[in-house]
Amino acid sequence: MKRRSFAKDECPVARSVETVGDWWSLLIIRDAFTGKKRFGEFQKSLGVAKNILTVRLKKLVDDGVLELAPASDGSAYHEYALTEKGRGLLLVIVALGQWGCEKGEFKLVDRKRRKAVKLELRTEDGRKLALDDVELVPSATD
Amino acid sequence: MKRRSFAKDECPVARSVETVGDWWSLLIIRDAFTGKKRFGEFQKSLGVAKNILTVRLKKLVDDGVLELAPASDGSAYHEYALTEKGRGLLLVIVALGQWGCEKGEFKLVDRKRRKAVKLELRTEDGRKLALDDVELVPSATD
Repeated sequence: MKRRSFAKDECPVARSVETVGDWWSLLIIRDAFTGKKRFGEFQKSLGVAKNILTVRLKKLVDDGVLELAPASDGSAYHEYALTEKGRGLLLVIVALGQWGCEKGEFKLVDRKRRKAVKLELRTEDGRKLALDDVELVPSATD
Repeated sequence: MKRRSFAKDECPVARSVETVGDWWSLLIIRDAFTGKKRFGEFQKSLGVAKNILTVRLKKLVDDGVLELAPASDGSAYHEYALTEKGRGLLLVIVALGQWGCEKGEFKLVDRKRRKAVKLELRTEDGRKLALDDVELVPSATD
C-alpha cells in the first residue's frame, strides 16, 4: 500500500503522525520514557521481530526522536536515548495512556516530590476546563 | 506483515494504539474534531483512496470512536460523529499538534469565551510543571 507522505504537510498533527504514527514507533517511544535503552530491552518488552525493530529504531533516529549513545556501563553495547525533540512527545504518550483508563500501567509523577501529575486543559489565566468546554478551531480564527 | 494484536494488552498506551495508531485513523479523528462529518469531506481533506477511507471509517465505528448518524440537513447522506469515547481523544490530537510547533494549523479554544486553551502538566494541588519535571513510572510505585 502506497502511503502519501505528510512530512511537509502544513498541519502539525499530520507532520507528527509522519514520525510517530506507526504503531511500533509509539510503543518504542513509550518504552524509552520508562527507562528502556537497549535493543534487547525493546525487543523483550514489545515481542517484536528484530528486523522490524531495527527499521523502526533507525527511523526514529533519522527523525531526531532518538539518538545513539555509548552504553552507560562502559560495555560495548550502545543505547538509545530520547532527544529533546523526543522528550517533547511525553504529552502524546500520557494522553494516549489516560484515554479511557482510570488507572493505567504507568503513571506520571513529579520528579522531585514523587506526587501524581495530570494532563489538564487550562486557559491562559489558569482556569481548568473539561473536554466538553473546548473546541479545536483553525488558527486564523480569533 | 503480520501485526501482533495489542487489543487485550494491559498497557493502556498499547490498547489505545490498537485503535488509533494507524496513521490515517489519527488524521480522520483530527478532521472529525474540526467539524468534518461526511465521507466526501474526509476524502477531500485527506486525499486518501476511497477504499482505504472506507476501511478506516468502519474500524473507527467498530471500535466505538465514531458513530453513524442521519445527515443533520435531512438529506439522504449519513454523517460520522465522534462518540464520547472518541471525544476523549482530544488530548491526544492536541498533544500531537503542540509537538514541536509554536503555532499550528489548529488551536484549542474555550467554547464559551473563545480564548486560547493549553495542555498543561499540573500536580493535584495545582502546581504547573515543565516536561523535564515529570517522569513516567510503573503504577505500583508510590
